[in-house]
Amino acid sequence: MDQQTSNPPATNPLSTEPSLRQRLASHYDFVRSWSELLCEPLHPEDCVIQTMPDVSPTRWHLAHTTWFFETFILAAASENYQPFHPQYGYLFNSYYNTVGEQFPRPQRGFLSRPTLDEVWAYRWAIDDRLLEFIQTCSEASLLQYVPVIEIGLHHEQQHQELILTDIKHVFSCNPLYPVYRSSDDEKDSSLSAEQNPIDLQWKSFEGGVVEIGHQGEAFAYDNEGPRHRVHLESFELADRLVTNGEWLAFLEDGGYQRPELWLSAGWATVQESAWKAPRYWFKQGQDWHHFTLSGLKPLALDEPVCHVSFYEADAFARWLDARLPTEAEWEVACGDRPLQGHFVEEENFAPLPAPTAPDTSLQQMYGDVWEWTASPYLGYPGYKANPGALGEYNGKFMCNQFVLRGGSCATSKTHIRPTYRNFFDPAARWQFSGLRLAR
Amino acid sequence: MDQQTSNPPATNPLSTEPSLRQRLASHYDFVRSWSELLCEPLHPEDCVIQTMPDVSPTRWHLAHTTWFFETFILAAASENYQPFHPQYGYLFNSYYNTVGEQFPRPQRGFLSRPTLDEVWAYRWAIDDRLLEFIQTCSEASLLQYVPVIEIGLHHEQQHQELILTDIKHVFSCNPLYPVYRSSDDEKDSSLSAEQNPIDLQWKSFEGGVVEIGHQGEAFAYDNEGPRHRVHLESFELADRLVTNGEWLAFLEDGGYQRPELWLSAGWATVQESAWKAPRYWFKQGQDWHHFTLSGLKPLALDEPVCHVSFYEADAFARWLDARLPTEAEWEVACGDRPLQGHFVEEENFAPLPAPTAPDTSLQQMYGDVWEWTASPYLGYPGYKANPGALGEYNGKFMCNQFVLRGGSCATSKTHIRPTYRNFFDPAARWQFSGLRLAR
Amino acid sequence: MDQQTSNPPATNPLSTEPSLRQRLASHYDFVRSWSELLCEPLHPEDCVIQTMPDVSPTRWHLAHTTWFFETFILAAASENYQPFHPQYGYLFNSYYNTVGEQFPRPQRGFLSRPTLDEVWAYRWAIDDRLLEFIQTCSEASLLQYVPVIEIGLHHEQQHQELILTDIKHVFSCNPLYPVYRSSDDEKDSSLSAEQNPIDLQWKSFEGGVVEIGHQGEAFAYDNEGPRHRVHLESFELADRLVTNGEWLAFLEDGGYQRPELWLSAGWATVQESAWKAPRYWFKQGQDWHHFTLSGLKPLALDEPVCHVSFYEADAFARWLDARLPTEAEWEVACGDRPLQGHFVEEENFAPLPAPTAPDTSLQQMYGDVWEWTASPYLGYPGYKANPGALGEYNGKFMCNQFVLRGGSCATSKTHIRPTYRNFFDPAARWQFSGLRLAR
Amino acid sequence: MDQQTSNPPATNPLSTEPSLRQRLASHYDFVRSWSELLCEPLHPEDCVIQTMPDVSPTRWHLAHTTWFFETFILAAASENYQPFHPQYGYLFNSYYNTVGEQFPRPQRGFLSRPTLDEVWAYRWAIDDRLLEFIQTCSEASLLQYVPVIEIGLHHEQQHQELILTDIKHVFSCNPLYPVYRSSDDEKDSSLSAEQNPIDLQWKSFEGGVVEIGHQGEAFAYDNEGPRHRVHLESFELADRLVTNGEWLAFLEDGGYQRPELWLSAGWATVQESAWKAPRYWFKQGQDWHHFTLSGLKPLALDEPVCHVSFYEADAFARWLDARLPTEAEWEVACGDRPLQGHFVEEENFAPLPAPTAPDTSLQQMYGDVWEWTASPYLGYPGYKANPGALGEYNGKFMCNQFVLRGGSCATSKTHIRPTYRNFFDPAARWQFSGLRLAR
Repeated sequence: MDQQTSNPPATNPLSTEPSLRQRLASHYDFVRSWSELLCEPLHPEDCVIQTMPDVSPTRWHLAHTTWFFETFILAAASENYQPFHPQYGYLFNSYYNTVGEQFPRPQRGFLSRPTLDEVWAYRWAIDDRLLEFIQTCSEASLLQYVPVIEIGLHHEQQHQELILTDIKHVFSCNPLYPVYRSSDDEKDSSLSAEQNPIDLQWKSFEGGVVEIGHQGEAFAYDNEGPRHRVHLESFELADRLVTNGEWLAFLEDGGYQRPELWLSAGWATVQESAWKAPRYWFKQGQDWHHFTLSGLKPLALDEPVCHVSFYEADAFARWLDARLPTEAEWEVACGDRPLQGHFVEEENFAPLPAPTAPDTSLQQMYGDVWEWTASPYLGYPGYKANPGALGEYNGKFMCNQFVLRGGSCATSKTHIRPTYRNFFDPAARWQFSGLRLAR
Repeated sequence: MDQQTSNPPATNPLSTEPSLRQRLASHYDFVRSWSELLCEPLHPEDCVIQTMPDVSPTRWHLAHTTWFFETFILAAASENYQPFHPQYGYLFNSYYNTVGEQFPRPQRGFLSRPTLDEVWAYRWAIDDRLLEFIQTCSEASLLQYVPVIEIGLHHEQQHQELILTDIKHVFSCNPLYPVYRSSDDEKDSSLSAEQNPIDLQWKSFEGGVVEIGHQGEAFAYDNEGPRHRVHLESFELADRLVTNGEWLAFLEDGGYQRPELWLSAGWATVQESAWKAPRYWFKQGQDWHHFTLSGLKPLALDEPVCHVSFYEADAFARWLDARLPTEAEWEVACGDRPLQGHFVEEENFAPLPAPTAPDTSLQQMYGDVWEWTASPYLGYPGYKANPGALGEYNGKFMCNQFVLRGGSCATSKTHIRPTYRNFFDPAARWQFSGLRLAR
Repeated sequence: MDQQTSNPPATNPLSTEPSLRQRLASHYDFVRSWSELLCEPLHPEDCVIQTMPDVSPTRWHLAHTTWFFETFILAAASENYQPFHPQYGYLFNSYYNTVGEQFPRPQRGFLSRPTLDEVWAYRWAIDDRLLEFIQTCSEASLLQYVPVIEIGLHHEQQHQELILTDIKHVFSCNPLYPVYRSSDDEKDSSLSAEQNPIDLQWKSFEGGVVEIGHQGEAFAYDNEGPRHRVHLESFELADRLVTNGEWLAFLEDGGYQRPELWLSAGWATVQESAWKAPRYWFKQGQDWHHFTLSGLKPLALDEPVCHVSFYEADAFARWLDARLPTEAEWEVACGDRPLQGHFVEEENFAPLPAPTAPDTSLQQMYGDVWEWTASPYLGYPGYKANPGALGEYNGKFMCNQFVLRGGSCATSKTHIRPTYRNFFDPAARWQFSGLRLAR
Repeated sequence: MDQQTSNPPATNPLSTEPSLRQRLASHYDFVRSWSELLCEPLHPEDCVIQTMPDVSPTRWHLAHTTWFFETFILAAASENYQPFHPQYGYLFNSYYNTVGEQFPRPQRGFLSRPTLDEVWAYRWAIDDRLLEFIQTCSEASLLQYVPVIEIGLHHEQQHQELILTDIKHVFSCNPLYPVYRSSDDEKDSSLSAEQNPIDLQWKSFEGGVVEIGHQGEAFAYDNEGPRHRVHLESFELADRLVTNGEWLAFLEDGGYQRPELWLSAGWATVQESAWKAPRYWFKQGQDWHHFTLSGLKPLALDEPVCHVSFYEADAFARWLDARLPTEAEWEVACGDRPLQGHFVEEENFAPLPAPTAPDTSLQQMYGDVWEWTASPYLGYPGYKANPGALGEYNGKFMCNQFVLRGGSCATSKTHIRPTYRNFFDPAARWQFSGLRLAR
């Protein structure tokens, strides 16, 4: 990965000089091998576990992303294509009803076969076939399938993030608290409860009719468009993310016991799920710890709070007489700032504190943690899902989910954009999700 | 009710000549007695049944609306107020955490006491106390509590609608299909499957920045404001509601078996709940019937389809390559047309067909059935829930619900407005809910 | 009921002098009218409630027992029989698969119709038809259907007990704690926690091969035979029932917190159901109360403990290094003692304390509370269920239930026998069930 | 294993000549290494899966049996014992409340760590410590702990059987139908549907007072005693097990659709679980297959039916107007016949057909499949569970379970006895369980 971070053009590998076939092959190879690197710290036993329906075993992610390329490129491009294995279509289709029936999602953890080695063999065989396809297919095919390969690579990157979020959930359910990657320095140990984060600053933005949404030639998911006008009132955004220290103050002020702070559905979830803190906070004796991919650590008060649900983020904002930003506000405020932030390429696998010297502008807009917005996930005016199976990618989830913006410490820098719309159920907490206040 | 429908000023009883105290008392009496009239066809046994958590027994509605006046006016206005019964606060508080603990909602059907007669005694005692309060309280109190009484009366009207929707659900679960009110004429019998509804017409509306939301002195719920600007693209609305006949065509075209027509959450609901038709459609032999408050009847093809969920409405629209309107589109298109439609005052208790001679304008905008919109139920920009218990009325439900507009055959004409926002879970079907197409 | 208790032959009404038809009609009338008397304190609202699947609404009991006579006598005896109502067979069949489909048991509380008055009309119409049948049918029919009528009357008596146990459950779920019948004297008030029950005495019985089970001409259910030999070791029985005071000592000794006292399935139930005391014990401040059909009362320490499950009875016995008796031990020890005890005819509707002057023999063997035995409910050697629908009466429940003996304060004296085998799930607590120790 | 089957004294390794310490060590080593052999065909991925709460991952079995020796011998015998790992007591305690809290059983499949290699390291370390203990402990300790070691080894053997039954369940949930051990010859292929099993013969036994239960010095679980007298009526047993062919006839005669054949609880289970055939029967097109540890095979009609519940066995018997034997009948009929049968040492991992030349005596009494009896699992008269943690081994399960006798193809020949009482829930099907008829 070192080359990548020192190599700016890598953020858009398709725009460099070599031939399209060569560049595509290189990009493919680059993205796919990152999945392999992420699995290096894992044992075969780790790769089969499913600790809740939302979590998929690592092996499943590796096979599903492979199935995606096999199905939507290799099989689509050739009438006589022989599938690598007759049952893998059933086992590794996630939710594409158009393509065929799916093995039940909550039972992915019931499968020990294909083994990890067999899944690697599957990946490598499809990699070979796909690279051969890239090099040898007709010009017409190339033009037809380049966008699909591009979707496949962005899809792979989404599952790379899920590999990390899912294994974090798996490890957190084990009282041994396994370590995914031990942290080099014990930077956490220098933190103390007295160390207050810098004061939060409000940045103001004018209202009016603005435009949001993706436009242009570069890759974007269909749900990022069409670009369209919206009317905004004037608003303010906090200049940085909410921290663990601030969340601790919320908690100690009875945040999880006061129904008046919560949406009705949020309060019902608090009661049913007995939430008392963010997902990976554990109290040992009098002290709060949080579970990270480097193991269980004393709570780092100046780090952005992470693994909170929309319901919690919304209640926290109400506690401070503030609110969450809408996605339009976030996107307008973000503007075209450079894509800087703590992404997965840094291999920190956890969010970092904001710089202690406050900037004059918004900080932490990219990376660290996904920011919950107040916006339900809906199609933009004029949005139509694509016909066919890939039309199931985004459109059918536009209900009862909320939009998150900005990417996280588990997101690739080459995967994020100002118009990027992530979305999850308002009760979801296993993602690297935090918040920024608005008013 | 006859006086009322022949008495135009009744739509805003507070604006007529007599003194405020007199007018308020008269309005109070008018609204409260309508609840009593609605219960006339019911036996005591009917009034205790709860057939699902969403449904409340009739007796509970009668007592809860009474508790509302007792708590938010009588008890609030006097420090020494002696509650009518020490336990009624616990039994008949619905969801006001600020006021106190609540008897569990799903167990309302476990209570046979207080009996119906005891509930009537409770209502009449509180009516006496409240009317005395209106006549004798100080001017200051009067000014303070007039808005609360007004909320209480609108609240009563919402529960009047629920008395009808809930008893319809209760009766529908009984294989004897009890009749709430038999219909005078057998108008349904003249309908035939061949009788096609008139062709649907599309009405066009210009886009741009528009204003929606309540303004002015007249009563409205807090969630109808603040009035604010939104930007709309140009759009078209169907000139009338979707009919049972059109829904039958959807059903027969495999509408309930084709995942590609559905949102993912909707399709999951179809599978889990084994939906095959709207809530009260029953197939007997080869023929579809629908259960109404006048009993089980052959399906009336030209009536508006009713008792469909948001998920079904959304799938139906996708089937026709159309969509649901947003609430802003609906409100702009509605404009300030007169409040005409088939409301509960007609005592039809079921929606009626659109006029066969097409109008030049939109029809059926008010009454008949609530119209699902594409808009998640959210606070308007700048919305803040009121402080205190009445702030729990609307704000805390602004999540995972969709807005419905226009009122239904179970809604009072004196309860609806162009800015009125009803909201329900996207899977809810027991309300009188239907749809109008947009594109 | 006064005649009955002063009229010894009434315990076997078929053995007296008048003609068989006359005696049968009189017996029928006597048993059926007792059901009516039991309903006198109830309002129509009380008669529709179902607070858990095991509980049936009063109205359902009244209709189901009527359906039993209509189906197994009137309809069975005449090819042209016209049912009273075409749907009542579906609504009021409990579990006789042979006869036809059944309305789902957990939804009996969804039905408000037929109303109580309509159910009375049903009962009286069937009573008329049945009494006419008794007087006018052929001799052959009479001989054929006398045993079925007898089963029907014993069946009615079982449901009379259920009317009481079920309404007790219904009322106990209401925070108003309604009173079924107020107790004349406040005898409970004289009880004090210091008042210890008399010491428990052990009575010894020899082992060997003994015979148990019903024999002879008198009525018994099929599950009470065949009479057969069993081998018993020598054993001892406590001379009286376990009291509330003794149970309180168990509770205060951590009985509900010590897994080592419990069967594994019992301990799982304690955890899942959060049992902390018998079913109707409620702690108010520092004091234990128990809910009775006369309302909520201070716990009467010298009364037999009641509304405990088999799991609790078993744990209590283990706590004292004792055990529950087997049903064979109970039956042998019971022998042919006279049928004396506190039965429903006393209209106490609650168990009474044992006499303070100890008897030389076993006390409280009949009435007061059903006694849990250590015996799973199984068919005796050679048992075969009858063919046809009435064969479903007892045989198909011979699994995962435990036998109870002796009858309770809700059982009719004319319904019990030394060989009578009642049976319930080991977790059931809503019956009038207690225990006697063995070792 | 070859030595063992050719070496008769191996059935009681403690009775041979060498010193007690030497014999004990040798027996320990022999039993423990068989667990390792059973795992040879498995991948690490296979060893972590839990497909239902009853199933434990292979790794868990390996660690739990090791924990048993560590806890009940090593830790019990030395005050200063340092546990191998501080958390393993929590992770690998199954249900011994006396010893401490347990990791929740349904979440055993959430744990990927310790890895398989780490579990092997745990086993081998404890093996070393235990063998050293055997060689070096005092005479007094030796006498005290020999019975516990013996229990530990029988316990290990029970888990060896569970390793096989559980992995069969795991593999059966995978549409790839993995093979545990491929069968050498394709003996199944020679079977045909027309090949009828030999006619069933009935063997008669006299009634009277008999004795059953364990006596003497040899090892037995506490639940096999005390030996005691029971009275039996005369009875008959089928000379062999029920076959797949006979079960197919039951199925084709509507066995799974006729409520009159079933216990009420059994019929409810059939409905809820949608049972249509034994657990591992799969219909492919028109043909029945069954899943075995050698993969999916055409149904072998002459093999004993396997993986049926008590409910199914009971219904099958009723279909033939027969019944299941009681455990006393089985034990008396079994007598002291030699321990011959198809046990796990044959490594067939599936039951075999009865010999086609009928014997004059009962066949298949040992091995092949566990035989459901009609007897609920209860303590024998005078049974008292041992004090302390090992008292939890058997006694606390004596409720709502039924006894099985005779061992199966997954049971070790050195583990079974005529008095051996296995027990499972009447709905359990994942064991190698079948039936023999009685009347």
